[in-house]
Amino acid sequence: VVIDVLRATTTMAVMFHRGLESLLAVEDIEAAHRAREASSDALLFGERHGLKPEGFDYGNSPAEAAALDLHGRHAIHATTNGTRALCAVAGGQGVVVAAALVNASAVAEFSRTFESVTLVCAGNGGANQFSLEDYATAATIAQDIHAHCPDAELGDGALLSMQIAEPAGLVARGTHADVLREFGFDDDLEFALRKDEAGCVPVVRSCGPGWAVLERA
Amino acid sequence: VVIDVLRATTTMAVMFHRGLESLLAVEDIEAAHRAREASSDALLFGERHGLKPEGFDYGNSPAEAAALDLHGRHAIHATTNGTRALCAVAGGQGVVVAAALVNASAVAEFSRTFESVTLVCAGNGGANQFSLEDYATAATIAQDIHAHCPDAELGDGALLSMQIAEPAGLVARGTHADVLREFGFDDDLEFALRKDEAGCVPVVRSCGPGWAVLERA
Repeated sequence: VVIDVLRATTTMAVMFHRGLESLLAVEDIEAAHRAREASSDALLFGERHGLKPEGFDYGNSPAEAAALDLHGRHAIHATTNGTRALCAVAGGQGVVVAAALVNASAVAEFSRTFESVTLVCAGNGGANQFSLEDYATAATIAQDIHAHCPDAELGDGALLSMQIAEPAGLVARGTHADVLREFGFDDDLEFALRKDEAGCVPVVRSCGPGWAVLERA
Repeated sequence: VVIDVLRATTTMAVMFHRGLESLLAVEDIEAAHRAREASSDALLFGERHGLKPEGFDYGNSPAEAAALDLHGRHAIHATTNGTRALCAVAGGQGVVVAAALVNASAVAEFSRTFESVTLVCAGNGGANQFSLEDYATAATIAQDIHAHCPDAELGDGALLSMQIAEPAGLVARGTHADVLREFGFDDDLEFALRKDEAGCVPVVRSCGPGWAVLERA
């Protein structure tokens, strides 16, 4: 379960909730442009330093995506940490999904059908730094799974999460939330906090170095 | 502030509390044996897979170290994750200290004199895994610093720690605490929980690849 709640995986969940057929996640703007050349009817979403890159249709904005009708459409989504985290865990034996608060309950319900669940926080700063918002989202999902499967064995990160009252509220209290406020992305931040607003589970269908294709589970 | 509370940094704090003059932390048994050849009066502490290696004087055991008179003595201490974490952050511009629950208040008091403090959790499994006990110790120190410096800016890991009631109690509740119990190290686990039992601050005086020399601050 890969979490990059501000904003990549929130935007992904919202896109599928708005009817998206498939999503190609890529690590950088150049890869996104190359993918669009090969698939000209795909919509281009993404960011560079928080902003919509030149030639892109949309930013990496859940609030913006929520206003779109994406039924039957295909998207290319350029996002650094989110894609890196998806690629880092995809390609192994497990099933990889993208999670945020907007699809937390759906992801928890989906995850409960598996024997083992690993929650992966994408993190900040090239993924080296602990991010409060990703951990808070993981804690929300871990608490949900634990409530339904009280006998499940917990790893140390999940054990810690059981100590936290209302983790979802912490998504807006980390350093990256402040960065988004500085950029003027208050709408996205507010949207990212709407638990279960977009109850879709995006799942990785195929992947390679620097890219992953997701569809609805 | 480097934390490997079960058991490396707890043992270190206890050794200095028992009068130790200096400690050479090394990553493996072989380096420890070589160091002893060069300094035959130094005492050899350490572990391999939790147990005291052949030819060593003592294990990596705070309970054992607490019973020793180490005044004027020098120690060589072989410990994998703890030494790696010390070496990873030492050699830069800052001052590096070893912290555990047994010296938490002393470390917090020492740290408060600096403009910026970074708490580094050594972690488990070759340091790749989050460890509840190291984070719980970091949370204890962060809460102490925050109580005395309420205006200090907090990073995401410290922000999370403010949500946790009585983090010190979590040291005994992680997966590595269970491993120690399986090995029969209940005494060490019980000792590691004794907050401020050994109020010494071991500080790195010099370091190189795979080794660090510590003395009392």
